[in-house]
Amino acid sequence: MNFLEERIAKDGVIKPGNVLKVDSFLNHQMDIDLFNKMGAEWKKRFEGKPINKILTIEASGIGIACVAGTYFNCPVVFAKKAKSINIDGDVYVTEVESFTHKTKNQVLVSKKYLNKDDHVLIIDDFLANGCALQGLISLVHEAGGTVEGIGIAIEKGFQIGGQVIRNLGYQLESLAIVEGMNDETGEIIFR
Amino acid sequence: MNFLEERIAKDGVIKPGNVLKVDSFLNHQMDIDLFNKMGAEWKKRFEGKPINKILTIEASGIGIACVAGTYFNCPVVFAKKAKSINIDGDVYVTEVESFTHKTKNQVLVSKKYLNKDDHVLIIDDFLANGCALQGLISLVHEAGGTVEGIGIAIEKGFQIGGQVIRNLGYQLESLAIVEGMNDETGEIIFR
Repeated sequence: MNFLEERIAKDGVIKPGNVLKVDSFLNHQMDIDLFNKMGAEWKKRFEGKPINKILTIEASGIGIACVAGTYFNCPVVFAKKAKSINIDGDVYVTEVESFTHKTKNQVLVSKKYLNKDDHVLIIDDFLANGCALQGLISLVHEAGGTVEGIGIAIEKGFQIGGQVIRNLGYQLESLAIVEGMNDETGEIIFR
Repeated sequence: MNFLEERIAKDGVIKPGNVLKVDSFLNHQMDIDLFNKMGAEWKKRFEGKPINKILTIEASGIGIACVAGTYFNCPVVFAKKAKSINIDGDVYVTEVESFTHKTKNQVLVSKKYLNKDDHVLIIDDFLANGCALQGLISLVHEAGGTVEGIGIAIEKGFQIGGQVIRNLGYQLESLAIVEGMNDETGEIIFR
């Protein structure tokens, strides 16, 4: 097990319905030492890629992305979620539908902060069905930029999002891939 | 002018109605080098305080707080905003009313991540009338913790929030205090 898998095994809490709660260190209370290890690991895995921007999505991607930004020496942009749109011409916007919640959300980013010269590393905390991630990729393409890679903290390997992204040919680096969980025994199986 | 004031003077954009747009470096695209300087400066200003937790609020406080967390070597917790409440007993919650928008929001944090042993540094990007900040202070008190200080990137010195907080006796360290702006000349006056 790597450092993140060890932490998930130690502090992750499994709830019925394949819910994995990691809010003690990842997405409510945030362990900055852990985030530094994650940033260093992604830097290693994306070595040689001409990354000049990190893109994430509010809210829980922001902390991870900003700490990773210290390793990539580049600005971090976070896409905003909006229920209702009041779009002027200054933003790229894409609509993503949540497979889980069946809700539709707009995801948007200002045209000023994403453009054709950007070589983007997308970072987020979770990947399950991948709706938010698909929206982020779409925004980079709309801007004419290049997705150099995708860094995810925890991928739910038993849901379809990761496979879709790999099939599409992207370099996806999930630091922990959960293959299965048992909410009765508390056991977590990693890929 | 300090490093942040210089950056605001260079890249801030003034809009009518005393709106200061700093989304090119602070709260949409984020300059991580700048965040590091801010973290180091707060570390200096709060030297000697027994800070063991940083509290911020989603979304634009999170990046600043996480980078600051690398200087304070402590976990960062972000409070969540909620329109509708579905509160179980596991969260501290406070209602804050926006003076500007006249909307009411719940601000909440899990009871697991804020408690009586916490000596909290509150960090946020903006302070104007201070509604969000008042909510964060209230959450720390509800948890029985101690507010050791408040670090703000940009305070609008012509609005009442900062004065209220200083009157209440808190150590408030705003890295840039804007006293006035002129959207016709583009001039910004700092305290």
